[in-house]
Amino acid sequence: MSLISHFECSRCQTVVPPSSEAPTVCPKCAGTLYVRYDLSAAKGIEARDRIGTTVQDRQWSGMWRYRDVLPTVEPVTLGEGWTPMLPSRRYANVFLKEEGANPTGTFKARGLAMAISMLRSYGIKKVAVPSAGNAGGAVAAYAAAAGIEAHIFMPKDVPLANQVECVAYGAHMTLVDGLISDCARIVGERKASEGWFDLSTLKEPFRVEGKKTMGYELVEQLGWEYPDAVFYPTGGGVGLIGMWKAFEEMEELGWVTGKRPKMIAVQAAGCAPVAKAYDEGADVSVMFQNAATFASGLRVPKPYGDYIILDDVRKSGGTVVARTDEELLVSLRDWAEHEGILLSPEGAASTAAYDHLIGTGFLKPSDRVVLFNTGSGNKYTDVLAQALGLTNGD
Amino acid sequence: MSLISHFECSRCQTVVPPSSEAPTVCPKCAGTLYVRYDLSAAKGIEARDRIGTTVQDRQWSGMWRYRDVLPTVEPVTLGEGWTPMLPSRRYANVFLKEEGANPTGTFKARGLAMAISMLRSYGIKKVAVPSAGNAGGAVAAYAAAAGIEAHIFMPKDVPLANQVECVAYGAHMTLVDGLISDCARIVGERKASEGWFDLSTLKEPFRVEGKKTMGYELVEQLGWEYPDAVFYPTGGGVGLIGMWKAFEEMEELGWVTGKRPKMIAVQAAGCAPVAKAYDEGADVSVMFQNAATFASGLRVPKPYGDYIILDDVRKSGGTVVARTDEELLVSLRDWAEHEGILLSPEGAASTAAYDHLIGTGFLKPSDRVVLFNTGSGNKYTDVLAQALGLTNGD
Ligand SMILES: [Zn+2]
Ligand SMILES: [Zn+2]
Repeated sequence: MSLISHFECSRCQTVVPPSSEAPTVCPKCAGTLYVRYDLSAAKGIEARDRIGTTVQDRQWSGMWRYRDVLPTVEPVTLGEGWTPMLPSRRYANVFLKEEGANPTGTFKARGLAMAISMLRSYGIKKVAVPSAGNAGGAVAAYAAAAGIEAHIFMPKDVPLANQVECVAYGAHMTLVDGLISDCARIVGERKASEGWFDLSTLKEPFRVEGKKTMGYELVEQLGWEYPDAVFYPTGGGVGLIGMWKAFEEMEELGWVTGKRPKMIAVQAAGCAPVAKAYDEGADVSVMFQNAATFASGLRVPKPYGDYIILDDVRKSGGTVVARTDEELLVSLRDWAEHEGILLSPEGAASTAAYDHLIGTGFLKPSDRVVLFNTGSGNKYTDVLAQALGLTNGD
Repeated sequence: MSLISHFECSRCQTVVPPSSEAPTVCPKCAGTLYVRYDLSAAKGIEARDRIGTTVQDRQWSGMWRYRDVLPTVEPVTLGEGWTPMLPSRRYANVFLKEEGANPTGTFKARGLAMAISMLRSYGIKKVAVPSAGNAGGAVAAYAAAAGIEAHIFMPKDVPLANQVECVAYGAHMTLVDGLISDCARIVGERKASEGWFDLSTLKEPFRVEGKKTMGYELVEQLGWEYPDAVFYPTGGGVGLIGMWKAFEEMEELGWVTGKRPKMIAVQAAGCAPVAKAYDEGADVSVMFQNAATFASGLRVPKPYGDYIILDDVRKSGGTVVARTDEELLVSLRDWAEHEGILLSPEGAASTAAYDHLIGTGFLKPSDRVVLFNTGSGNKYTDVLAQALGLTNGD
């Protein structure tokens, strides 16, 4: 594993030296901090090819195969990462990255395995997090595994699975009559008096480190080559941000060359702050009013890292796409019936956006693309039962 | 991959040569047929150590790393197998085998990936299956992927997730006012006239072949050594039967030596036909009356392969344990709160049975054991919400 050299602000480039205290945000501008390493030991193709040679070693399997580019820590692992890269049965150049295979059934496991491992090493005893649902479930799981007290704040209409997770894992769950932004406000107000470490998206540097493994993994699974485009359902946007950081690191390490993929941030039309900002040429987003979509993970009316998402997408030559819930449901059914894959509503935003960008000519069928399914459809049983007409939604 | 040498009846040892027709059961006694191979090419430690060297090759990843001991076929894969083997945080010699990481969230994916791959190669166009729930979902998924028409018969009170799966994947779903045995009767009555291939548990030889990979995998993940005991939630019992077959094959191949594990078949007290037969010294089970348990996968009142399960358990020096739903729920909460793992109710039968057998002295804390969690707790959102008091069950 690699020693942390320093933390660097993603907005103003302020350098923060490592200390015995768990890092939060930039002390100057409250921007997200990135972890920077001395990566010299991991440089070169030889180092790259050592990866995965110890697959028998449970502690270093899954996403921990990339331990050489992760902070030195004893992992709190539930088996996260190294998820299937499934070739589409219909489209020759389309791959589905199946993040539903993770513990707790979503990509959130990667970020929180990393963050909770680090927080445990810093001696943190209590964490709090506002969540659109799946991060809450993952925080509850990894906190339980690590013996840390977890306080989860979620909108009261999150999928039932997320509530079951919080209660079963023994977390303190508060259901809020509002959106994740309201949950974040409560955590912000109470954290000092309660002694909670704030695990909010991008308010600490380690969730990005866990999620960046998706970038390493997709490149390795494609034979250490970049695809032409990556579609990523974007609520808080940490996955997209993490992958872009991974690509930077991999190039520095000499592990991959060539043109980076176009990053396609995908949102729901009912909550599309980043798409709106992108269309308007803005550098940051504006709080999206009356946010509503059955893709609960995309109900983030103003992502904290909007400035990074917009910057990464533009640098990549990508775009931001918003599709309606109707379009998501059509694509979800299409992939279930013809590919045998039950997407999450957020994953269906990826597949719907792909169809859209092929239709507009932004991408060609010959472009090699990776579509992220960020979670298992099984986390949305109540939501999908209603959408498919199996229940009346009571 | 290996050519099928012949099929052999598990009861009367009748040999059936391979043909262009998909095999079903023994023509003499209706016993389950086992696939037998010419395994000479896979013999020896050298062959064993070739396994997993092509992890980059998506088609041969997951359970297909064991292709040398599987029938020759083009896989219909959704990324099944090679699931995490998680060391317990509390018990030094306890490992949890997390089958919830499979496609469709349960171990059923292994058997049905294999069976559907084979049936497609035989030209089968329509399949039917009676299911306690999760097999139905997996049949629906793999049939959709393979372009095969699926007819699923399930009790009307199966978890909502299984119904969502069948509908989303475009299967023909029939909810039956009864148990899996009633569903099986309907399939049996209608299959000839409808032209359905009967995918019932152990009425064709290939689901066992897929599920036997759990046996190869657990031995490989423990460093090519047997554990002292394996706990397996036993409804239809194919997993346990498949693992025992794997151990036989691995010994023939010279891939493992030493004493085979005690096989612990675990049932719910509310549906415990195999436990009852075991206690009475019987060779087969009797239809269990008024079967009822929230571990829906264990609601199998008379498993078709009861004679094989009982024989394997006895040969192994193991036992059959039944625990109440209350005990299952206590253990489920215990593992969620202290290990960060949300078990299925069936998986909680494994963990509850482990506690029981430590209590009785049948096993010692120094015994190295593998407890199977056969599915993700996320497949039971409605069931667990009710059990945890989150909903009133409406
Ligand atoms: Zn700053
Ligand atoms: Zn026979």
